[in-house]
Amino acid sequence: MQRLHSVKANSIVSKWNRKEIPDIVIGRLPVYLRTLRLLAESGQDVTSSHELGDRLGISSAQIRKDLSHFGEFGKQGTGYNIKFLCNQLQRILHVDRIWPVILVGAGSLGNAIANYTGFESRGFRIVAIFDEDPEVIGQKMGPVYVDDFANLAQRTEETSAQIAIIAVPASAAQRVADRLIHVGLNSILCYAPITLVVPSHVRVNYIDPVIHFQHMTYYLK
Amino acid sequence: MQRLHSVKANSIVSKWNRKEIPDIVIGRLPVYLRTLRLLAESGQDVTSSHELGDRLGISSAQIRKDLSHFGEFGKQGTGYNIKFLCNQLQRILHVDRIWPVILVGAGSLGNAIANYTGFESRGFRIVAIFDEDPEVIGQKMGPVYVDDFANLAQRTEETSAQIAIIAVPASAAQRVADRLIHVGLNSILCYAPITLVVPSHVRVNYIDPVIHFQHMTYYLK
Repeated sequence: MQRLHSVKANSIVSKWNRKEIPDIVIGRLPVYLRTLRLLAESGQDVTSSHELGDRLGISSAQIRKDLSHFGEFGKQGTGYNIKFLCNQLQRILHVDRIWPVILVGAGSLGNAIANYTGFESRGFRIVAIFDEDPEVIGQKMGPVYVDDFANLAQRTEETSAQIAIIAVPASAAQRVADRLIHVGLNSILCYAPITLVVPSHVRVNYIDPVIHFQHMTYYLK
Repeated sequence: MQRLHSVKANSIVSKWNRKEIPDIVIGRLPVYLRTLRLLAESGQDVTSSHELGDRLGISSAQIRKDLSHFGEFGKQGTGYNIKFLCNQLQRILHVDRIWPVILVGAGSLGNAIANYTGFESRGFRIVAIFDEDPEVIGQKMGPVYVDDFANLAQRTEETSAQIAIIAVPASAAQRVADRLIHVGLNSILCYAPITLVVPSHVRVNYIDPVIHFQHMTYYLK
């Protein structure tokens, strides 16, 4: 493949108006970024919308259309420079920095999350872990010591965290969410198998394996 | 609210043709089911597309349209009988039974998954856990003992499992997936932060918290 024409990064990212871009498109960008980084790690320099599409089960036209919201990242017939596109996507998604994240729940799930080593390279760091159980408060879990949930407000302010993970049982999740929102944590990733009731300015994403299983079993006999 | 007119269950579910229903609609049904079950647990008997929509951040029209693919579950102005609709959704999604699930990876994430108590009430049971590490093989984890990954084919046949969870590091995930597919496990839930390369008849869903975080940070400053 030919070398890509170089394009000035600033001129690209400043062009787009984030109000106009559908949320479903934004949701695909992290998936593109993950795939591009895997290609980069395997030593590849250039890719195409066709290669990405084949890997992801998305049409190449969709990928080109999604990326075109943010500028022109490749030339027809020459493909995308992987490193350049990774950098652009990281800037667009604001993960060209490290975001502090608060974790609530120090059970076996919280422990697994705290010990996951893949956050930092992708823009996130667990800076505090909370629980209400005196048995686990003070224990080391992954990189930090488990703190008393009563200290949430103070630690949130100290760490400037805007993102929180809920890893408590379903029965406690709404109460935890209410507290998180009260202290200004308005971006929440919830592992509890419930749908939280939250104000409209709060964004909640859910991780629930059973939702995926039940989607799969529809197609099984 | 008035009582719902009773409708014969069989006549409803047999009407629809599953070929015609978009996958994105199928993907929302488990979310409806989860919410309906939470309403039922809180003692509620009847709900409406408006109430469901408010809870889920989906328009009531979308919910009615999604459900209409499968028959008529409520009467205008009277809403849905929650228990009836739960039963119907469980039948449609084939979770009116228990599906055996195989888990690969007995690290801290595997341990958290194995100890999760919310699977069985929603249609799933971890029946075998595999690892390659002699240190963990033979240990009890949640309800079962960790087995040698070398025994995958035999145990898959014994348990009739069709669904598998990958909870190994990214570097091992593709190799594990290849083995799973080789023994006929064609529905895979992957916790490793990679995109697997699989044949077209294999369905893979992904659980990757960073994808959610990066979606959130797009909107943060």
